[in-house]
Amino acid sequence: MIGGGKDAFIGAVHRLALNMDGLIELSCGALSINPEIAKDSGISLFLPEDRIYLNYEDMIKKESQMPEDKRIDFVTIVTPNFAHFAPAIMALDHGFNVVIEKPMTFTLDEAKQLQQKVEETGLSLCLTHTYSGYPMVKQAKAMIADGKFGKIRKVWVEYPQGWLSKLSEREGNAQAAWRTDPKKSGKAGAMGDIGTHAWHLAEYITGLKVTKLCADLNALVEGRALDDDGNVLLRFDNGAAGCLMASQVAAGEENALKIRVYGEEGGIEWAQHEPNTLLVKWLGKPTEIYRAGQAYLSDVARSNCRTPGGHPEGYLEAFGNIYKNFALSLIAKLKGEEPTAAMQDYPRVEEGVRGMAFIDAVVASGQSEQKWTDFVV
Amino acid sequence: MIGGGKDAFIGAVHRLALNMDGLIELSCGALSINPEIAKDSGISLFLPEDRIYLNYEDMIKKESQMPEDKRIDFVTIVTPNFAHFAPAIMALDHGFNVVIEKPMTFTLDEAKQLQQKVEETGLSLCLTHTYSGYPMVKQAKAMIADGKFGKIRKVWVEYPQGWLSKLSEREGNAQAAWRTDPKKSGKAGAMGDIGTHAWHLAEYITGLKVTKLCADLNALVEGRALDDDGNVLLRFDNGAAGCLMASQVAAGEENALKIRVYGEEGGIEWAQHEPNTLLVKWLGKPTEIYRAGQAYLSDVARSNCRTPGGHPEGYLEAFGNIYKNFALSLIAKLKGEEPTAAMQDYPRVEEGVRGMAFIDAVVASGQSEQKWTDFVV
Amino acid sequence: MIGGGKDAFIGAVHRLALNMDGLIELSCGALSINPEIAKDSGISLFLPEDRIYLNYEDMIKKESQMPEDKRIDFVTIVTPNFAHFAPAIMALDHGFNVVIEKPMTFTLDEAKQLQQKVEETGLSLCLTHTYSGYPMVKQAKAMIADGKFGKIRKVWVEYPQGWLSKLSEREGNAQAAWRTDPKKSGKAGAMGDIGTHAWHLAEYITGLKVTKLCADLNALVEGRALDDDGNVLLRFDNGAAGCLMASQVAAGEENALKIRVYGEEGGIEWAQHEPNTLLVKWLGKPTEIYRAGQAYLSDVARSNCRTPGGHPEGYLEAFGNIYKNFALSLIAKLKGEEPTAAMQDYPRVEEGVRGMAFIDAVVASGQSEQKWTDFVV
Amino acid sequence: MIGGGKDAFIGAVHRLALNMDGLIELSCGALSINPEIAKDSGISLFLPEDRIYLNYEDMIKKESQMPEDKRIDFVTIVTPNFAHFAPAIMALDHGFNVVIEKPMTFTLDEAKQLQQKVEETGLSLCLTHTYSGYPMVKQAKAMIADGKFGKIRKVWVEYPQGWLSKLSEREGNAQAAWRTDPKKSGKAGAMGDIGTHAWHLAEYITGLKVTKLCADLNALVEGRALDDDGNVLLRFDNGAAGCLMASQVAAGEENALKIRVYGEEGGIEWAQHEPNTLLVKWLGKPTEIYRAGQAYLSDVARSNCRTPGGHPEGYLEAFGNIYKNFALSLIAKLKGEEPTAAMQDYPRVEEGVRGMAFIDAVVASGQSEQKWTDFVV
Repeated sequence: MIGGGKDAFIGAVHRLALNMDGLIELSCGALSINPEIAKDSGISLFLPEDRIYLNYEDMIKKESQMPEDKRIDFVTIVTPNFAHFAPAIMALDHGFNVVIEKPMTFTLDEAKQLQQKVEETGLSLCLTHTYSGYPMVKQAKAMIADGKFGKIRKVWVEYPQGWLSKLSEREGNAQAAWRTDPKKSGKAGAMGDIGTHAWHLAEYITGLKVTKLCADLNALVEGRALDDDGNVLLRFDNGAAGCLMASQVAAGEENALKIRVYGEEGGIEWAQHEPNTLLVKWLGKPTEIYRAGQAYLSDVARSNCRTPGGHPEGYLEAFGNIYKNFALSLIAKLKGEEPTAAMQDYPRVEEGVRGMAFIDAVVASGQSEQKWTDFVV
Repeated sequence: MIGGGKDAFIGAVHRLALNMDGLIELSCGALSINPEIAKDSGISLFLPEDRIYLNYEDMIKKESQMPEDKRIDFVTIVTPNFAHFAPAIMALDHGFNVVIEKPMTFTLDEAKQLQQKVEETGLSLCLTHTYSGYPMVKQAKAMIADGKFGKIRKVWVEYPQGWLSKLSEREGNAQAAWRTDPKKSGKAGAMGDIGTHAWHLAEYITGLKVTKLCADLNALVEGRALDDDGNVLLRFDNGAAGCLMASQVAAGEENALKIRVYGEEGGIEWAQHEPNTLLVKWLGKPTEIYRAGQAYLSDVARSNCRTPGGHPEGYLEAFGNIYKNFALSLIAKLKGEEPTAAMQDYPRVEEGVRGMAFIDAVVASGQSEQKWTDFVV
Repeated sequence: MIGGGKDAFIGAVHRLALNMDGLIELSCGALSINPEIAKDSGISLFLPEDRIYLNYEDMIKKESQMPEDKRIDFVTIVTPNFAHFAPAIMALDHGFNVVIEKPMTFTLDEAKQLQQKVEETGLSLCLTHTYSGYPMVKQAKAMIADGKFGKIRKVWVEYPQGWLSKLSEREGNAQAAWRTDPKKSGKAGAMGDIGTHAWHLAEYITGLKVTKLCADLNALVEGRALDDDGNVLLRFDNGAAGCLMASQVAAGEENALKIRVYGEEGGIEWAQHEPNTLLVKWLGKPTEIYRAGQAYLSDVARSNCRTPGGHPEGYLEAFGNIYKNFALSLIAKLKGEEPTAAMQDYPRVEEGVRGMAFIDAVVASGQSEQKWTDFVV
Repeated sequence: MIGGGKDAFIGAVHRLALNMDGLIELSCGALSINPEIAKDSGISLFLPEDRIYLNYEDMIKKESQMPEDKRIDFVTIVTPNFAHFAPAIMALDHGFNVVIEKPMTFTLDEAKQLQQKVEETGLSLCLTHTYSGYPMVKQAKAMIADGKFGKIRKVWVEYPQGWLSKLSEREGNAQAAWRTDPKKSGKAGAMGDIGTHAWHLAEYITGLKVTKLCADLNALVEGRALDDDGNVLLRFDNGAAGCLMASQVAAGEENALKIRVYGEEGGIEWAQHEPNTLLVKWLGKPTEIYRAGQAYLSDVARSNCRTPGGHPEGYLEAFGNIYKNFALSLIAKLKGEEPTAAMQDYPRVEEGVRGMAFIDAVVASGQSEQKWTDFVV
């Protein structure tokens, strides 16, 4: 693991997730650019002392020199956005597969280089768009792909958070500080941090691609350098209309990602706050409440559940599903087998490139006087 | 009552609403342009035969010649949009106050003429933006006006319906037919029918005014003449950002009007499907569930409740509140008293004019390549 | 109307309900035993002065001497429980049909006498068990009667309120005072006031009859003379098991009547706080959300709706349905026609007798050391 | 681990839970009485071959002979109820701490012997009453203990499941088979399986003890040997009244454990299906929605959360909390330190004894003609 020391949020989540199914073991780490934090974090995670590294270059070099049965199979990168690219390229160059936090890189150009590197090396890259790991998201995707609702006409995806309602970046909140700093976060704030999750969920569930958009980005808290809020009109490749709303100044909201999709015959509604429920709506018939763990779900949804109906699973399990599928995929490859479609159901480098293109398009549109800006990769 | 014969939806609702509190009695009607329907409808409503009129001109003329203590105090107009203006003007000219369905007129120009007529005559005009009649909407308005949440930053209002998911206007659905016909409905479809409700609710609750907008209007059902769906970016006069979504092709939805408003310290969420509940959100504190009928509510919310907490009120009661406040206001005026602010809490001609301007701006924006279109009256 | 003066709660509710559909007009009243309140209340309700009576004896006598086309068709009795019987008997004796608040009488013996009188006179008596007026309650009843869920095995009905959490009867709360006074309320407190509603709903929805019960009644607020809380085990005539919980000291609850019924294949859940929704549960299939106003509902449910789906109806409309069906039934009888089954769908004297027997059984069981007490009429 | 082979449900859950926080490693197992299943299960869990045992006696003996730094620290017993006692006693006798599924033993007598053994050996026993591991359950407990609601008056706890609505034990469902077999499950069916969870939750959250009860137990599916349903009236040691409902024939329900507690000033409501939410109700004030992961929670609730607000945790995390606290407690003891109160917050042998006494009392009451049966340990 690169990054994710004691003071970080997402690193700990990655560790809980990768550890969940007994398929992956954390073996080494370059956990912080601060040597003391790096060491302390490594010790508290029971890492062997000689595999606690003080920088990622050391880690990748030394691990690549270990015997095959001892060295790591992949690298997880959980540093701030600006520090994703270099370790990812280096890891791939040294033969390691890569798991990486979203947004994948700092710029679209880096993303494309990374994609090229992945293609060249034939290695795997997994992007942790966590929300696509929920079983009921997969159920929604399966029903839409099966044509249960006819042609998709309308997509609403929203992601309100409230935690940046104050100018917390000036009050010693480290999380807030890097995420609102263009030098660390990139050209987008809320749109990069959570807007990309919302966009990804919309494309993942519907199987459609955004072709153009119209963004209204705002820094609603005075003094903030990046957008903390935005509404985006969307157009999809089948002609469907959409709207994406993301805000980090929706005071009183937690992490309320929600998506609604409507087709000719009905649609779906899924909210991350109650992730084990999928509302399935029908024209002229009662809405149905689909529930995780039930036998009537699609195969893909069921295989991403760990417990029977009524035993709620959550964010860590969804995150764990990304790692589990990635791990099963790697294990198959190591055995010389072809991973199944189910194993390959994790976000990949192509989605990382599109995510960076989304940020580019959204920021360009936010600055444009024209209504529509093309979404091009 | 003008319009609202047996085959109409909203006329029956008006009658239930005006009848609710024993303040208003339906005394006469020109209930349909079809003489047979007009007569039958009048008889089934127990109207005296000599006050069942075959057209509104007759009704207004004859009623105005009756002795003061027998003749009607106001006229309710529930015809399709294109037939609002003429009877409204004539009623005012003959000394009758007017209640009118929204959108107020067919064009903005008519709306402005009507406003002038109201001002000239000193009579009252009430526009039935029903949703502003709900007590918990009034509670939200009161808390925002009191500054409980600080400056308002963000408004999300949505109004999904599914009933136009098929091309029902071609299948003998009379409601669908006139609402999707530009000659009867005006230049907007869904935006005129329900978008105006959503816009009105946003301005009513926040006390803010929309200054510019960016609309994406769509006819998502092939062959439809008017928009059946739209997403609109909003900017308010205090700088707040907003998003308005309205759709009549959200298959499986009923009438799911919902609004969320966020300020610096918290915000509110209200959904018409559960109208007796108002969620009040706070930065860093638990969300509170405010409930209709409770003693802790503001005076204005309480005075618009008829039952104690836990005895749900609904759409008819909200509609009844519009009529009740309007009636109390008229009664006060008839007694030569000044109506209180609470009595005057019903939508008025100014809001009708703004509503028509909203339609104009939204349609203009929908056709524009420019991102922003000014909202001007 | 007998009782229901300005200081009463339920009288005003009755007036809103009976007025709703334009079928019934309040024509006279003996609205209070306090002459001043009786007069003031009558005036504020626009009653003609000569039909504002100071006691019910006068009212019934004088009304019965009026010409048939002027005099009232029925009497509504909304006095405290102890004062139901005498005016009901007198009204029937003078040829008036009767609407009466529940519990029907003060004692089971009175109830039986009243039943005999109703049978003798051939007149109609309607008992306002309001909650049976909700359309979704009727939908549940219809589905169970249709055998959709197989044999019914289990019934849970609960009715928590919190308004008697303090000893309010000693603090000038008039409502609390008579309801907790055995001389006015009868031998039961919460069980008479709300337990009877819960019991009635269970029998109404399931079509089953309670045959024995085991009650634990409590006065949980110190100093209270009657039960303010109780849990009751139930056994039904088909062998189904049940549990009824009622409390008026569930601090923080409003009026949260809720029922769940389970059969072999599924069941239903309905909560009065969201009355337009009925959850329909199925073994091994997704739960369905049935909604008021929808075309897929049973005829009886649809005919008790006034608005289309998504336009919430509430408590007053449910109350209005009781009155509407009663009125339609009377109108048919006055025309010499047989009322339809739908018209006769209002609670009747038999249910009033059973309600009094329920109170007797529950109180007897509460005092018994034996587990089971028979429910006998 | 003893029991929990490939065909078992709860064994897999235990493994996910104990693995969660990186504090515990599964090192050996006697996973089935079927040697083949035992071996296969061990291999698929990556256990070293020499630590895959074919019976628990072997396992305990051999492990106890290993060097201290290699041998296990505790034994987890996840066999059917009748096979808990012997391995637990043997493990304690050989110096191993014990984690055990509920109900703790087959009889109350065994439970008392086990308690004595725990006391004699000074070792720790942890009982996996999972639902007490949820952070919002701990929040409720903390608020009640702090006296926020005054004296507790009323407790309602319910646990409906539907999975035994058919006679599945005759259709090859292994889970159903042993749970409905008195020889394997004990004298109670649903009451032992889920009624004990409901009872435990009630005592855990309120800090009160049940002193007497009145049970109505039923086998609602014809041909079933043990109760599959029951309603139980409760009395607590402070005089509070209660009701416990448990059913495994509530067709269409999943695992819908829910508790409501009311005191003089308000109360709480918590449902396992949405475990990250705690409703906090107040007399005369709006209900509050407390949410997991928020800074305003009590220390004990916060320390049992792994993710920030809005990142839902579930059943496995609650289960993991039981293991985590138990593990932290053992680690402290191994270091010679006194475990903190927070570490000791896991269900213990005393609760196991009370759980068996609850089963005894409930079954005795179910067979009694008397209303009340004392709950004695």
